[in-house]
Amino acid sequence: MTHLTSQAGLHSLLKTVTCSLLVLIGASALQVAYAQNVAHPNLTVTQADIEAIRTQLSEVPGAQAALTSLRKKIDAVIALPMDVPVPQDAGGGYTHEQHKRNYQAMYEAGLLFQVTQDTTYLNFVRKMLLAYADLYPTLGIHPKPKEQTPGKLFWQSLNEAMWLVYTIQAYDSVASQLSAEDRTLIETNLLRPAASYLSAGQPQTFNKIHNHGTWAAAAVGMTGYVLNDQTLVKQALYGLDMSGDAGFLQQITQLFSPDGYYAEGPYYQRFALMPFVLFAKAIDVNQPELKIFEYQDQALLKAVRTSIQLSYNKLFFGINDAIKDKGIDTIELVHGIAIAYDITSDPALLAIAQRQNNILLTGYGFRVAQGLDQGLAQPFQYQSMQLRDGQAGDQGALAIFRNGIDHGHQALVMKNTSQGLGHGHFDKLHWLYFDNGNEIVSDYGAARFLNIEAKYGGHYLPENNTWAKQTVAHNTVVVDEQSHFDGDWQVGQKSAPEVRFFAVSDDIQITSASIAQAYPGTNLTRTMAMVKSASLEHPLIVDIFKVTSKSKHQYDLPLHFQGQLISHTISATAHTSKLEPLGKNNGYQYLWARAQGPIKPGMSQVTWLNENRFYTYSVLGGDDQQMIFTQLGANDPNFNLRSESALIRRVKSAKQHTYVSVLETHGEYNGTSEYTKNARSSVVELVASSAAGVDENIDVVTVTLVSGESFSLAVAEDSSSTAEHTLELNGKTFVWTGPYSLLTNTKN
Amino acid sequence: MTHLTSQAGLHSLLKTVTCSLLVLIGASALQVAYAQNVAHPNLTVTQADIEAIRTQLSEVPGAQAALTSLRKKIDAVIALPMDVPVPQDAGGGYTHEQHKRNYQAMYEAGLLFQVTQDTTYLNFVRKMLLAYADLYPTLGIHPKPKEQTPGKLFWQSLNEAMWLVYTIQAYDSVASQLSAEDRTLIETNLLRPAASYLSAGQPQTFNKIHNHGTWAAAAVGMTGYVLNDQTLVKQALYGLDMSGDAGFLQQITQLFSPDGYYAEGPYYQRFALMPFVLFAKAIDVNQPELKIFEYQDQALLKAVRTSIQLSYNKLFFGINDAIKDKGIDTIELVHGIAIAYDITSDPALLAIAQRQNNILLTGYGFRVAQGLDQGLAQPFQYQSMQLRDGQAGDQGALAIFRNGIDHGHQALVMKNTSQGLGHGHFDKLHWLYFDNGNEIVSDYGAARFLNIEAKYGGHYLPENNTWAKQTVAHNTVVVDEQSHFDGDWQVGQKSAPEVRFFAVSDDIQITSASIAQAYPGTNLTRTMAMVKSASLEHPLIVDIFKVTSKSKHQYDLPLHFQGQLISHTISATAHTSKLEPLGKNNGYQYLWARAQGPIKPGMSQVTWLNENRFYTYSVLGGDDQQMIFTQLGANDPNFNLRSESALIRRVKSAKQHTYVSVLETHGEYNGTSEYTKNARSSVVELVASSAAGVDENIDVVTVTLVSGESFSLAVAEDSSSTAEHTLELNGKTFVWTGPYSLLTNTKN
Repeated sequence: MTHLTSQAGLHSLLKTVTCSLLVLIGASALQVAYAQNVAHPNLTVTQADIEAIRTQLSEVPGAQAALTSLRKKIDAVIALPMDVPVPQDAGGGYTHEQHKRNYQAMYEAGLLFQVTQDTTYLNFVRKMLLAYADLYPTLGIHPKPKEQTPGKLFWQSLNEAMWLVYTIQAYDSVASQLSAEDRTLIETNLLRPAASYLSAGQPQTFNKIHNHGTWAAAAVGMTGYVLNDQTLVKQALYGLDMSGDAGFLQQITQLFSPDGYYAEGPYYQRFALMPFVLFAKAIDVNQPELKIFEYQDQALLKAVRTSIQLSYNKLFFGINDAIKDKGIDTIELVHGIAIAYDITSDPALLAIAQRQNNILLTGYGFRVAQGLDQGLAQPFQYQSMQLRDGQAGDQGALAIFRNGIDHGHQALVMKNTSQGLGHGHFDKLHWLYFDNGNEIVSDYGAARFLNIEAKYGGHYLPENNTWAKQTVAHNTVVVDEQSHFDGDWQVGQKSAPEVRFFAVSDDIQITSASIAQAYPGTNLTRTMAMVKSASLEHPLIVDIFKVTSKSKHQYDLPLHFQGQLISHTISATAHTSKLEPLGKNNGYQYLWARAQGPIKPGMSQVTWLNENRFYTYSVLGGDDQQMIFTQLGANDPNFNLRSESALIRRVKSAKQHTYVSVLETHGEYNGTSEYTKNARSSVVELVASSAAGVDENIDVVTVTLVSGESFSLAVAEDSSSTAEHTLELNGKTFVWTGPYSLLTNTKN
Repeated sequence: MTHLTSQAGLHSLLKTVTCSLLVLIGASALQVAYAQNVAHPNLTVTQADIEAIRTQLSEVPGAQAALTSLRKKIDAVIALPMDVPVPQDAGGGYTHEQHKRNYQAMYEAGLLFQVTQDTTYLNFVRKMLLAYADLYPTLGIHPKPKEQTPGKLFWQSLNEAMWLVYTIQAYDSVASQLSAEDRTLIETNLLRPAASYLSAGQPQTFNKIHNHGTWAAAAVGMTGYVLNDQTLVKQALYGLDMSGDAGFLQQITQLFSPDGYYAEGPYYQRFALMPFVLFAKAIDVNQPELKIFEYQDQALLKAVRTSIQLSYNKLFFGINDAIKDKGIDTIELVHGIAIAYDITSDPALLAIAQRQNNILLTGYGFRVAQGLDQGLAQPFQYQSMQLRDGQAGDQGALAIFRNGIDHGHQALVMKNTSQGLGHGHFDKLHWLYFDNGNEIVSDYGAARFLNIEAKYGGHYLPENNTWAKQTVAHNTVVVDEQSHFDGDWQVGQKSAPEVRFFAVSDDIQITSASIAQAYPGTNLTRTMAMVKSASLEHPLIVDIFKVTSKSKHQYDLPLHFQGQLISHTISATAHTSKLEPLGKNNGYQYLWARAQGPIKPGMSQVTWLNENRFYTYSVLGGDDQQMIFTQLGANDPNFNLRSESALIRRVKSAKQHTYVSVLETHGEYNGTSEYTKNARSSVVELVASSAAGVDENIDVVTVTLVSGESFSLAVAEDSSSTAEHTLELNGKTFVWTGPYSLLTNTKN
């Protein structure tokens, strides 16, 4: 342990670790000096994998191309002087990025060595591992440590764990070819201390049920397998005390819902998946008896599939803190899909791999290449579904409605999930809409320019808290210009929406949810449906948002839309020669009020154009509603925000209000061929009633189309699936069972 | 002539036509009752073409697919009730669009009949022609006539000519299968009167050297060939009086410059090309002795190729009135490229056809399909070039500098052309820059939502005149907030920029132009260069813009950029809580001033991100310059304008000023793989001097890079290519001949 105690920084950290654990680690370190008894590679890639690749490569053009491309990339890296710098910069800075490039290069060079037997790659990995083995013992805590979780090579231990996950795989690729002396040096000076630092050295993170904990568990556990150190493996699987209260298995159990949803949302789900699937693969190789991929009703495979379901046109739904250009082709999902395909042989996963267009030279990557070359891919079945949130599935849900599976299909996402911890947004009952390959009704995502140092060091911008997380940045009701839970995520964490019902049929897909805790004393209930009509090309979105309170409040319902405003029927006054912010706090300070006007009783419409298609938002007036046309960008001296547009429907003072809206997707603008079709909305009338006289707990919205067709959506306050309801409408009587009914041709 | 005199509307119009012409037309009409002596088709498609398609179709999968797809499209049209409505609506309205759909459908059904021999298509065309023959004699001038050039089926005769160009081709496809009775009816009641209306009926337009005149000439001439009416043909070729002063040949001569540039710019060049290439094809078939494609040094083939050179990543440069989504895949260029390929067999044209992805079932289209199926396509050689403007090539020029030919190559366009008539913008010495597949330094294009009725009926918006054409909407100097030529295009028409020099070599591509008439008493001289540097991945753009006047003025130099502002080094005051327009007139009223600050002496930089690449604009301070950050959208109550960003460098009061700027393309932001490279500019110093002491008529700009590399661009006032210049710089003496020199490593 001399190499440990010589480091003052780590030494002080270790004081927090219990003595018994130190003994345990010490014992295991002495037990196996280096990985002499294990045949390598045998971690995420096995000797059998390599054998298969080597013998069958010539028959798989896709893998050959990947090999050529990877050689070219790594050859270029090897041609440069090796650079293992003394840690200095924070995230995004030079040394940070260089250490990231290094672990990536070691991992890939290791694979290349295995596949090609070219010792150039072996020598590169060896030389770099030795350079790290030289450097690592000299390091204390990183000079720019991040909060409570510093690393040594990196500013935060999360990056250190990522480094070890890659590096241990690289080591596994070359270990059998290294001299005993090299191995002792690398294991003693580098791998063991790094694993030790990430486990015993930071028990809070290591034992945390959180993606940082998973990265640490994966790094430590994978190191345990390679170094044949059962203690490290057991700590990784069962927690530092090996009791099973923490560790990888608990993380699988607790971090994903029964439907494979990760509480922080798809952006972090993707990130979190990487250590899950890589470590699981290593477990499957080394301890197949654990049946890790069967564990908890196939929780990991479910999480991989769910992450694909959480995307539209390759990009993840941008809910919560999310960089919106992240999608299914990220490296985490390239590994995830390939590992899942390797286990399941599900041809739909091949379709995703095809879109990823990134063949890995691992065993599982090779089998994807084989599958693709054999033309086995089948379309991935994007589905309408409800993804329950929370470990027990009782913390709300994300509802996804889809109309088809093609590139341009319609998808509605209603966010009835729980807060999602510190990366969650204050956006209960929020929704998004996608069509024609684009995001149409949008979420701002995170306010962050990842890795762009000039933008706040590449970190989350201050505007992430002050704008992106705030309720007004979302498509849901804001009461009195305050955000949900008064903007406190820990308060938000306590109360998830209640899903009232969820149903999918040919004609209608519908869900309803409510929450009473976002604003104490005020209840929010929203019902959203995707309704098909015989006379329309695309389904309509119907939205009934009911706000009730005992006292009077101001209610705002924003709609953030992407596109160019084409026309509207509001008598609005435009602020043409002076713009001022709409408010002072909670995100309102960033909104310029561009125009404003009363929404008269009856239907008003706003139409915009996105790419080559029109979208018309038809809304009902009443309660002295105002329509405010806003543009983002006030109080933004550093140009940190995108200049996006929103419509805000404001009810100045009311105890209750029901917002009724219909979104229609219609027409085509064709610039190349110079024609425009159906630029006008087909919705000609919108009427809301409360089922006068018969059952006053039923909301009825009637939509009439230009074709003469009409339908009514009736939604009962009683969400019981067995309650029977009766409704008189236009002189007819309708009877049905359950919380809602779609009544067609209700008008004459 | 009874069918003519029965129409009151046309009758009154005909009063303007000279008596002798009426006699001429009458005579030719009597001479050939119907096209009985001509073997059809024999216009743009010949019997030999059809024979070739029929016998070889099975060997050309590309054409088979086109046939399947066209059948599907036309079968769907035929399945609907035929609709030949009484004209009623203006452009974009229902009857307007329906008549457009009809001529398109007749043309395509005619081709389908020829290729498939399926009489369903014959019957469809026949029935529709007869319906038009019924309708046409009942029509007077269109009820919503456009200005001085009304049509009968359409609001303007331009559309009527387009209708006839398509319809005469459709008739040519079916004429041989029609009864003598049908033919007489169609020719007498429809085709002859339409041709007559477009020629003798509107002599001003027909004889005009303008694209409207070309459409009319093509319609009339093609009708002449099909009806075997030599008078119509001669009028089309040589003008109404057949003197040769007007007509198609004059249009070829006068409308394109010696380099194939069309004065109105690429957007209208594309539009104008259609009648040129179709009529030329018909001439080539019927009067091959005219060698029409050889005419005027192959002017038409040159115009086709030039129109491709006027594009970047499939889209035309958006100069002058231009809808920016128009590009090389428009139908005009699909015909143009195919006809040009048919004549030249140039494999580079096939590469364009491949990108167009639209196979025509004409003879020339079929030969394109054959070429593509045989894999004959070769990359199109996009080139750096100067396209002289004006019939004699002496009305300025468009300079295009390119760095490569791939999808993402860099392209700089400097607009030193003439005004370009009524669709021209007030943008002398303006420039655009393209990179990475995107427009980076931009032109707003036209303010118009083509065919979108809600936006001012789909016409040019009022903002096209008040914003898009104004100088401040471009990247060139505005003096005293007035537009060039005081915004009068007829004044602008009189004075084109003088091109001082143009040169392309490996290291530098450079051009310089000046104009003294844009602002009386003020001279504008701009030199722009694309300079390669060994230490940079992409070339730098160097811009030296010299404004000199005898009296003091305010000078503004805008830069309209596309992207998200990342950082800048200006001490700017941001207007965070109130925005006001920058000015009152000439486009300034549309610009919100978002921030403003002094540009201190020395270099200042502004960096923005577009997609995954960074762009840094390095500018020199001095003369109390201010940098104004603007955003478009003030005084825009109808949301007619896109919300775009610009930087304006303002010199409040000076007799002269030289704007020195360098634009660097650098780095990479990779969201998927989470890395950022070279986000900072490599330009570390920018110095301007006037070659102190040695030769005061030389401007020298020295750029120093972070690599230590430096270069100086020296530009002499004397643009003679033989003048010798001497320059002392940093203690060294440089001697060269010609107007400029790129001096490398000028610093120690």
